Amino acid sequence: MKLTINREQLLKGLNVISKSINDKHPIPIMRNVKLELNHEGLGLIGTDNELTIKTVIPFMIGSTEVIRNYQPGATLVSFKILFEITRRLDGNEITLEVIDETIVEINDGRSNFRLNSIKPEEYPDIDLDPTGVTFNLAGKKLAEIVDQTAFAASQKEQRPILTAVNFSTEGNKLVVVATDSARLAHKEATIDDEVKFNANIPAKVISEISRLCLDEEKVTISISETKILFAFNGTVVNSRLIAGEYPSTKNIIPRSYNYFLEVNSEELLKAMDRVALLSSSDRENVVKLTMSETDGVQVSTKSAQNGSATEQLETFHFTGERLEISFNAAFVASAVRACKSQDVMLGFLGEMKPFSVRNDKDDSQIQIVTPVRTY
Amino acid sequence: MKLTINREQLLKGLNVISKSINDKHPIPIMRNVKLELNHEGLGLIGTDNELTIKTVIPFMIGSTEVIRNYQPGATLVSFKILFEITRRLDGNEITLEVIDETIVEINDGRSNFRLNSIKPEEYPDIDLDPTGVTFNLAGKKLAEIVDQTAFAASQKEQRPILTAVNFSTEGNKLVVVATDSARLAHKEATIDDEVKFNANIPAKVISEISRLCLDEEKVTISISETKILFAFNGTVVNSRLIAGEYPSTKNIIPRSYNYFLEVNSEELLKAMDRVALLSSSDRENVVKLTMSETDGVQVSTKSAQNGSATEQLETFHFTGERLEISFNAAFVASAVRACKSQDVMLGFLGEMKPFSVRNDKDDSQIQIVTPVRTY
Repeated sequence: MKLTINREQLLKGLNVISKSINDKHPIPIMRNVKLELNHEGLGLIGTDNELTIKTVIPFMIGSTEVIRNYQPGATLVSFKILFEITRRLDGNEITLEVIDETIVEINDGRSNFRLNSIKPEEYPDIDLDPTGVTFNLAGKKLAEIVDQTAFAASQKEQRPILTAVNFSTEGNKLVVVATDSARLAHKEATIDDEVKFNANIPAKVISEISRLCLDEEKVTISISETKILFAFNGTVVNSRLIAGEYPSTKNIIPRSYNYFLEVNSEELLKAMDRVALLSSSDRENVVKLTMSETDGVQVSTKSAQNGSATEQLETFHFTGERLEISFNAAFVASAVRACKSQDVMLGFLGEMKPFSVRNDKDDSQIQIVTPVRTY
Repeated sequence: MKLTINREQLLKGLNVISKSINDKHPIPIMRNVKLELNHEGLGLIGTDNELTIKTVIPFMIGSTEVIRNYQPGATLVSFKILFEITRRLDGNEITLEVIDETIVEINDGRSNFRLNSIKPEEYPDIDLDPTGVTFNLAGKKLAEIVDQTAFAASQKEQRPILTAVNFSTEGNKLVVVATDSARLAHKEATIDDEVKFNANIPAKVISEISRLCLDEEKVTISISETKILFAFNGTVVNSRLIAGEYPSTKNIIPRSYNYFLEVNSEELLKAMDRVALLSSSDRENVVKLTMSETDGVQVSTKSAQNGSATEQLETFHFTGERLEISFNAAFVASAVRACKSQDVMLGFLGEMKPFSVRNDKDDSQIQIVTPVRTY
């Protein structure tokens, strides 16, 4: 294998696959990037067994030559070292050449690197062929869906299924749910085709993927029993799915409410942010919302160690009897941010019942938070 | 104690003392800031026993009222909480009031915080009176001195004296030295007065102090046997000194050289940065400089694990026989950066002798690096 490649394009490609390679992977070969030059261009492949990314840098982009003076072949080199070298070189072009099976030479005229390399045959087999059902989604839409759900997935590995975001369909409606059992995010979107699937995608992985394809007009998604594939613009991303049945969340979403609070998102976020300063060292982030049609709305907290704090909200509309409800301020803050709206609507059933946070003008999503016991 | 204070000025004052308070200090009272309102204004005091800072926010700045509606007094509150509240409030003014000896109320009209507080009598006695000899230095000059020396002090506590920067005088010449025994920075400056002292200031502390007074035209420094005091513009900083005699470094600085290399600083830094990429996982940052009048100058490294790298320098002037010398690239990089010049002059005696890095146009400083054994 030999080629002279535009440095910026190589760097861009290495950036695309960077999240699939862990430089501290216990199996040393997995710390490598596989370089594969064939008729398509230069393929860069990385995998950590959970997430696999392959991107192909073509010979030409428009009328600009990206790769020249090449001979096909493949090799493995340390991803980190190749990435850092590519980042730090000054020249426009880099020449890569497999000298023998153990050395790859990188040269830009001024700098000469001879990296130890490994025979490509020793790399695990990568299967990036689409299987199962297929549908398309715009990158921006996928990013929106993930942005409004993935944060609610569990960070803890005790129940692995809750570290996933659940994607399923009802006809041509895509239903996406994430929950860590203390809060829940539910999002719906319309897709062009009627396909049937139910897949648990690791939340961390789907977040990375949605960032990668944010600007793509068309992302083709293929889902089988065990894996999901995203294909866009020369890049294919493969994620394993988490096995098991996702818990049913339908009955968690309240059908009616006894109390409604409409507030300015920014004002609520700032008030919770300040008040939670006092709660953080005793009880993680717990704040209390006190609402009444006559006395207004207060956000408050009390801590034996630090003292107490109260904020008066100025812009609000409350309907219902007087209500006090305590919750994790960070959970409500994420829910409010997911609504991406100037005002949010909170719907309550009672002091200890899960409540909803919604954007009144967007019924494609609903955020649910479970209160905590008041102190 | 009671006062209404401009929020921005309070935040600025809290920023000034922030480095003296460690929120994880094992003695809880040390996590507090002492607020002290008297005829001077509002004094903010913090200490971690090593570094003490007091800054006074005056009643007026020019013709602008900073503090109004006040009653003298003192109290202690959690530095972190007061700092975070002050940062996050929206209003222009904050009212602080000691309600009783255990509560301080903070109010900006919208938010109300009642912080637990401690009687000021329980705070350690802070002695900020100047003792010993005194001289003045511009903040910029102090920053330059510290910038060109403190990095060479030891990070390790095995020999506490080497974690200090040594300040001493010869007549009206200030001599500042730092070394971790593998490299040394030596800087001289002229001071207005003839004073006599020899003081070991913790490198971390002097770095913080030099940042604080960077913009001050006049910093008054008082040095006694056990402490050093910096006074400028309403702020007093006190650092303990490290006891013991600083090792004599005079004989380490070579008096003559057998080889000279003049190189472009940027080019040398970039070449070392790239080449050191390969060395880092085996032998920390070791690179080799190969110099010859006929074959030019190469920076190179070799690693059993990663491979090898060679860079050709383009802009250089070398005088002497062919020489190969290996060193910690990070040490030479800091020395080159300290020179703050387009070109640097390296002077060598031989393969295993300490060598110097200098700015040809500034003989106030010299940087010395000890080579490492070649592989």
